[in-house]
Amino acid sequence: MPFAFRYRDILRTIVFFLVVLGGLSQPCRADNDPLPSWNDGASKQAIVDFVGRVTKEGGPDYVAPPERIATFDNDGTLWAEQPLYFQGFFVFDRVKAMGKREPGLLARQPFKAVAEGDMKALAEQGEHGLAELLAATHSGMTVDAFAKIAKEWIATAKHPKLDRPFTQLVYQPQLELLTYLRAHGFKTFIVSGGGIEFIRAFSEDVYGIPPEQVIGSSGKTQFELREGNGVLDKLPELGSNDDGPGKPININLHIGRRPILAFGNSDGDLQMLQYTASGPGARLMLLVHHDDAEREFAYDRQSKIGKLDKALDEAAAKKWTVVSIKNDWKNVFPPKP
Amino acid sequence: MPFAFRYRDILRTIVFFLVVLGGLSQPCRADNDPLPSWNDGASKQAIVDFVGRVTKEGGPDYVAPPERIATFDNDGTLWAEQPLYFQGFFVFDRVKAMGKREPGLLARQPFKAVAEGDMKALAEQGEHGLAELLAATHSGMTVDAFAKIAKEWIATAKHPKLDRPFTQLVYQPQLELLTYLRAHGFKTFIVSGGGIEFIRAFSEDVYGIPPEQVIGSSGKTQFELREGNGVLDKLPELGSNDDGPGKPININLHIGRRPILAFGNSDGDLQMLQYTASGPGARLMLLVHHDDAEREFAYDRQSKIGKLDKALDEAAAKKWTVVSIKNDWKNVFPPKP
Repeated sequence: MPFAFRYRDILRTIVFFLVVLGGLSQPCRADNDPLPSWNDGASKQAIVDFVGRVTKEGGPDYVAPPERIATFDNDGTLWAEQPLYFQGFFVFDRVKAMGKREPGLLARQPFKAVAEGDMKALAEQGEHGLAELLAATHSGMTVDAFAKIAKEWIATAKHPKLDRPFTQLVYQPQLELLTYLRAHGFKTFIVSGGGIEFIRAFSEDVYGIPPEQVIGSSGKTQFELREGNGVLDKLPELGSNDDGPGKPININLHIGRRPILAFGNSDGDLQMLQYTASGPGARLMLLVHHDDAEREFAYDRQSKIGKLDKALDEAAAKKWTVVSIKNDWKNVFPPKP
Repeated sequence: MPFAFRYRDILRTIVFFLVVLGGLSQPCRADNDPLPSWNDGASKQAIVDFVGRVTKEGGPDYVAPPERIATFDNDGTLWAEQPLYFQGFFVFDRVKAMGKREPGLLARQPFKAVAEGDMKALAEQGEHGLAELLAATHSGMTVDAFAKIAKEWIATAKHPKLDRPFTQLVYQPQLELLTYLRAHGFKTFIVSGGGIEFIRAFSEDVYGIPPEQVIGSSGKTQFELREGNGVLDKLPELGSNDDGPGKPININLHIGRRPILAFGNSDGDLQMLQYTASGPGARLMLLVHHDDAEREFAYDRQSKIGKLDKALDEAAAKKWTVVSIKNDWKNVFPPKP
């Protein structure tokens, strides 16, 4: 009896330890990999190596925290961009909403094409038609009023094809990368060809990137006192086109330091990557390559949206890191809630 | 003898405690006052009250840390600005240095006036002359080359009248205020009519404000690949005049949030203060009033540099906080090193 009792005790102890250790080991393993949605491979290794080198105090590649600037393109780099930049869906929804209040608007182009979903007629309107759509939906109101409209839209709108809110079409591996970089003293910025105020409507909630770290294309604004209240009106006039060479120009204007890491996905990011690559010390230039038709989309050199051609050649020549969605990303989007 | 011994012991103990407490009480008192260069009075009280209210969790005026945005003008608010904006001294020194390399430059206006120190002739060149001086000294080089020149100048140049490096002509009470605000979760920004790249050359060292939190007037830049290197050239063309209504416009462009605290000193700061005042919740608007001819300078409504006229009237009408250098500041500049 005493023996049997002791035996049971030992068994119970063993089981207890197995349970406890088993329970502990799962979260431990997850904690050890800050990039669980990245498959092991050259891309993940390049990121982890780079962060290790620039944060190693006393090492030859050490970079002081204030200089750890990382810039990310948005469309196609942090969230999807097909079959249309998501801000395009916003523009279409706004035109339809405006048409309900003033139906006359929808009788003429380019608004008619939007209302009828006639993409061919819309394309025929060219650059001028797009500018008119942008002006109609992005000006003639205060910046505060626009922010409210954009926040309401992003909270409710869904991608027509993928049937998920746009904020769930962000890339899970990139969310992990942003968090990982910030945990290592990086300041993360968005540098997007998209509208600065549109992105600011969700960047803090979705990416943990505050508005003052969002750079984008912008319209001009005008300060006015209205009934004693200081307001900023959005004007129908382009201020800055934050694309191509506009990216390094605006990085200098807004940040005033050269990034040491830059992540893009298209030829519009080429100059940002060139600018990043041209500084002294350790640097990491990355491109998302959309090569996964099954889980996301597959496009590059021939695409109208997010064309990746020259930058792909330069990445090969300069040994920049090309991230394959198909091979490098274990998950693409966050798990459905 | 035992009694005498005990008596001496008690005395010794008393002396010991007086010495220890005396020694402790000095640093203690200093630690308790985060704004030691501010005299007790309405201005200091307004600052301490405001910070207390917006940081009191659960209180009616609580503001979450990300929204604690404070914007400071630079010239006349964070450092002195007489008899000339300090960037003006930089321009003069640059013209003289350029004249050594190409003497022909100094034969014609407005450069001749600068070389000869002829302020009357310089004034006759008007706006156009100033623009030419700015273009000559602030463009025709890369942003990196300019940063190097500005850093070298600020490290060595001295104020001709006050005979101290310009970086020692910052206001000690404001350095304490910046530190105090940051210790309470504020993000501190400079919003200056001065050149953004000029201020960035010293803002981190002198004010603890990193380049990405400096907003200022700027010239246009152009991205170029030079021998495979991505560089930004400074062009002789104004990009943004960050003065008056330009301040709220650039605050929105760069920060994307309305400040809850703004500190200026001239009519050029009026719109920034109006914009700050027009948001919801607790707000603090402040103006430095230069009224101390003995320790600094005395000027307001009639001054060419840092004119404070309309903003002074509006401050009185709106009960904004007017900080008197004479009465509110115990020290003006940092102690001489």
